Amino acid sequence: MLGKNTWLIADGYMSDTVKGEFVSHEAVCVLNLSGETAHIDLTLYFEDCEPLHGFHATCDHERTNHIRLDKQVNDEGKTIPRNKPYAILVESDRPIVVQCSRLDVSQPEYALMTTIAY
Amino acid sequence: MLGKNTWLIADGYMSDTVKGEFVSHEAVCVLNLSGETAHIDLTLYFEDCEPLHGFHATCDHERTNHIRLDKQVNDEGKTIPRNKPYAILVESDRPIVVQCSRLDVSQPEYALMTTIAY
Amino acid sequence: MLGKNTWLIADGYMSDTVKGEFVSHEAVCVLNLSGETAHIDLTLYFEDCEPLHGFHATCDHERTNHIRLDKQVNDEGKTIPRNKPYAILVESDRPIVVQCSRLDVSQPEYALMTTIAY
Amino acid sequence: MLGKNTWLIADGYMSDTVKGEFVSHEAVCVLNLSGETAHIDLTLYFEDCEPLHGFHATCDHERTNHIRLDKQVNDEGKTIPRNKPYAILVESDRPIVVQCSRLDVSQPEYALMTTIAY
Repeated sequence: MLGKNTWLIADGYMSDTVKGEFVSHEAVCVLNLSGETAHIDLTLYFEDCEPLHGFHATCDHERTNHIRLDKQVNDEGKTIPRNKPYAILVESDRPIVVQCSRLDVSQPEYALMTTIAY
Repeated sequence: MLGKNTWLIADGYMSDTVKGEFVSHEAVCVLNLSGETAHIDLTLYFEDCEPLHGFHATCDHERTNHIRLDKQVNDEGKTIPRNKPYAILVESDRPIVVQCSRLDVSQPEYALMTTIAY
Repeated sequence: MLGKNTWLIADGYMSDTVKGEFVSHEAVCVLNLSGETAHIDLTLYFEDCEPLHGFHATCDHERTNHIRLDKQVNDEGKTIPRNKPYAILVESDRPIVVQCSRLDVSQPEYALMTTIAY
Repeated sequence: MLGKNTWLIADGYMSDTVKGEFVSHEAVCVLNLSGETAHIDLTLYFEDCEPLHGFHATCDHERTNHIRLDKQVNDEGKTIPRNKPYAILVESDRPIVVQCSRLDVSQPEYALMTTIAY
């Protein structure tokens, strides 16, 4: 079975900058080759306040889901704050692979970074 | 034996931007130190449609192959679509090492990102 | 228990450039899901001189700490030099996850890079 | 013992661009916490020609060495070609940690990427 059920990302951050059609954001990119739909829970951790739970996503077998963090809303209607460092726990009921990427447009030009999660 | 036969990349994306001699693209970079030629199959997974199979490449022993995804054509003559998130399964009959990188020129200047695949 | 107690980063570097509100810096980003507060020691290694010890940080359970290296002061009042290559040993008394990122503003626009530490 | 003796990097490339004080380059960054000096051999692999052997470096205990690939000369007086994709095998007689980073100044502004090697 390819992948695993729990993944961790320590460096999360979305600035509030927008440039034309581009918006600074992060994406938790998931690939599911497990044979069944994966149900995914995201928990966000911060430096100085309680975690935010209750963000959910799914990814079907033989599909990818590039989960845009700037578009997520949790069970309580909360979104992920901008301009605030966070970290992410990704939990899936099926083994998946997780890679996290950031697009930042704080400056006239933009910057990209990515890493396979831990 | 250095490397392994199966590698996964969750964040794939090629914008359709061109800037002078530069074209936005991704490369699946392979190193083969297995003693024999590696035959490599790529499968592309999407968010909302069936996978694309049938992309093939080879990498000789003691050679690298930086497989440009914008130049691949599969058995059915299909190319990898731009402006559409994907993920990649890399399967080789010999152990290899895989690293995936993106060059994006959507903006006047460009951005790079890379990670060893999972 | 998620994570581990020892992490290594081989490529550290902070240029001395500043651009408006942005300052070139690196961050050692930590996530702690161990159940107790983590006490973290950083040691900096250089190419041509003795290591710098005595940089300390903490990270509570279910919190992240994005440790800005340009703001750290060690037990002897020393800071981390700019324009000088270094590497980092991160030691924690509790298992944590570590990801290291660099923001560089040496040029008019900036660049980002990140990787999960080893 | 922290680290390992063999590391692989699949995506190597140095463009021939220079911009003011900046030159496009890659660095194989090494950290040695093994207790003794590490003697390191680099082998460069290409897409369409024989490997280049005979690049050597050392890294003392509790030191880092950010090995600039644009400055290496092998036993036969050869340097690493620019504008040509390569991959790297890093072999050390002592366990080390290896991270590879690229600075590219092909465009007016520059781009960075990094990953812990495999």
